[in-house]
Amino acid sequence: MNDLGIQPVKWQDNQLLLLDQRLLPDETVYLNYSKSAIAADAITDMVVRGAPAIGVTAAYAFVLAVTEAIDKDKEHWQEALKPLIAYLAKARPTAINLHWAIVRMQACLDKVDINDGTDSLLGTLLEEAKSIHMEDIEANKTMGQFASDLLPADCGVLTHCNAGALATGGYGTALGVIRSGVANGKITSVFADETRPWLQGARLTAWELLEDNIPVTLIADSAAAYLMQQGKVQWIVVGSDRIAANGDVANKIGTYSLAVAAKYHGVKFMVAAPTSTIDMAMPSGEGIPIESRPAEEVLSVMGQRVAAQGASSWNPVFDVTPADLVDAIVTEKGVVEQPTTAKIKAMMSR
Amino acid sequence: MNDLGIQPVKWQDNQLLLLDQRLLPDETVYLNYSKSAIAADAITDMVVRGAPAIGVTAAYAFVLAVTEAIDKDKEHWQEALKPLIAYLAKARPTAINLHWAIVRMQACLDKVDINDGTDSLLGTLLEEAKSIHMEDIEANKTMGQFASDLLPADCGVLTHCNAGALATGGYGTALGVIRSGVANGKITSVFADETRPWLQGARLTAWELLEDNIPVTLIADSAAAYLMQQGKVQWIVVGSDRIAANGDVANKIGTYSLAVAAKYHGVKFMVAAPTSTIDMAMPSGEGIPIESRPAEEVLSVMGQRVAAQGASSWNPVFDVTPADLVDAIVTEKGVVEQPTTAKIKAMMSR
Repeated sequence: MNDLGIQPVKWQDNQLLLLDQRLLPDETVYLNYSKSAIAADAITDMVVRGAPAIGVTAAYAFVLAVTEAIDKDKEHWQEALKPLIAYLAKARPTAINLHWAIVRMQACLDKVDINDGTDSLLGTLLEEAKSIHMEDIEANKTMGQFASDLLPADCGVLTHCNAGALATGGYGTALGVIRSGVANGKITSVFADETRPWLQGARLTAWELLEDNIPVTLIADSAAAYLMQQGKVQWIVVGSDRIAANGDVANKIGTYSLAVAAKYHGVKFMVAAPTSTIDMAMPSGEGIPIESRPAEEVLSVMGQRVAAQGASSWNPVFDVTPADLVDAIVTEKGVVEQPTTAKIKAMMSR
Repeated sequence: MNDLGIQPVKWQDNQLLLLDQRLLPDETVYLNYSKSAIAADAITDMVVRGAPAIGVTAAYAFVLAVTEAIDKDKEHWQEALKPLIAYLAKARPTAINLHWAIVRMQACLDKVDINDGTDSLLGTLLEEAKSIHMEDIEANKTMGQFASDLLPADCGVLTHCNAGALATGGYGTALGVIRSGVANGKITSVFADETRPWLQGARLTAWELLEDNIPVTLIADSAAAYLMQQGKVQWIVVGSDRIAANGDVANKIGTYSLAVAAKYHGVKFMVAAPTSTIDMAMPSGEGIPIESRPAEEVLSVMGQRVAAQGASSWNPVFDVTPADLVDAIVTEKGVVEQPTTAKIKAMMSR
């Protein structure tokens, strides 16, 4: 299903397997899930993270939920299913891929002829989940090709958080672009923000790229503007958790800071995301729910308290970058430069 | 010498005492220094940090150096002194206060009548060092008063790194402004960047403000632009390690990122620093040496490795904010708004 070594989500022996990203890069441990609510908690607790990977996980968790519902009540399983899906749907608020995957799985369920029996039903749903998974990987590879046309020769790039194989079905959105750009020789240096508080850059992005023998230089998040001032990068490349219809982009906290600094320095700003991340029902970024996570994530680092006792923290884990700071949104359906609602609508209808 | 509880630098029983800032906030330990080279190493190793505190430390270390030189060679102690001062002078490159304090101590030494004997000589030098120390505290308090006139009512501020009592003779530059602004009721909320990689914000600024019962909310460095977008702060207040004659400001890495974001959001940007931080011999920020520190500071947090093995890092620990992003430089001689070389020259000659 994935020709890369790194697979954050797998389906095996009727169970969902998730690579526990809280333990990376020190340990590579897969956890098994046979109950949808426990899989939903794994999303909340960030065993798996990254909008597309959350979508793929939700698709498989949907299969688990239907299995459980049928086991519980063969007659009225559709009633038993509802609370399971509702619980899954609220695992994390910002990534729209969670909602998107549930809607697609529900649409598949609605089309199945229940008279064919539950085995057939579950088989069809599992095929749909696997399709979501495989299509995500394919989308990432297509995006990598599209994005390469935008990059100049001898390009330095900076990425934020982890929008890699770990954050997707495989290959990655922003890191897919970087993988493709390195492979074809256009990208010659890669910088990654360490990405506090969860250190996705230092722990996950660096690990992933080094597994692929792509050298990566980590920087403190606050060094990004100085990096741009020094002319070391020509493009910022990030993923997204939700893109509004007008091109406003919700992504990991700090993305907005990069976009502001990029505009100031004439550095280009690219968002790589599958169309499953685009929320055409959300007119602008203003309405996107921004998750706040526990203060402790800022006050501590990897479980070790660093802040003075008594200090509080403000810990929004996403921010919204307005469309006018975005030079290109790259999806599997094509590239939208200087995004507007009309351009995005046209791209989505291809 | 300091009516505040927090004293990063003390002189006691002919020894220099430094509060080991590497151990804060967990432990409050003073280390004793009787040799200037070991005190210089303490500056390099960040036992003490913050440009004005480095200046005060260097002044006392100068006294230690003269004492050692006289002990070593009563006849030719001035020759023996030179390498000791040269070693002290290169302890850290960016903070000009180090150089400034040495020049001032040397000028004092040059004026002393050596025929009065070494006790008198050392007494005079120690008085000069103590003057530097006390003047720094007084300068901070004066700055706090000047800055208050700039602040609106109900003002939210964001500070970066630690420019507090710990970074100075006492009271603080940026935190002096905040202490004054809180005391007179203008500042109603205080945010502090955690300030990776050394976490001066989380460890030192939060500790200092809470010791004074000033509530502080820590944020991940990358959340600062989003904080501004949300309208939570009206002023950014920072210290400086060196200000060029034209008003370009070298300060902790990340300061430049804040200044760029502040300009974008119409948030005001203030630099609070004594005139000992202004380097009139440096025409612009371009020439200011920017210290790079070990990669390990980014790859680890408080001694715990966080980054994937094999990752490298780029770790400049200062950056330069161009004068055109600075709304006000506040010194003990007055306020310079929208700084230019002419305005700074006029202020310095007051």
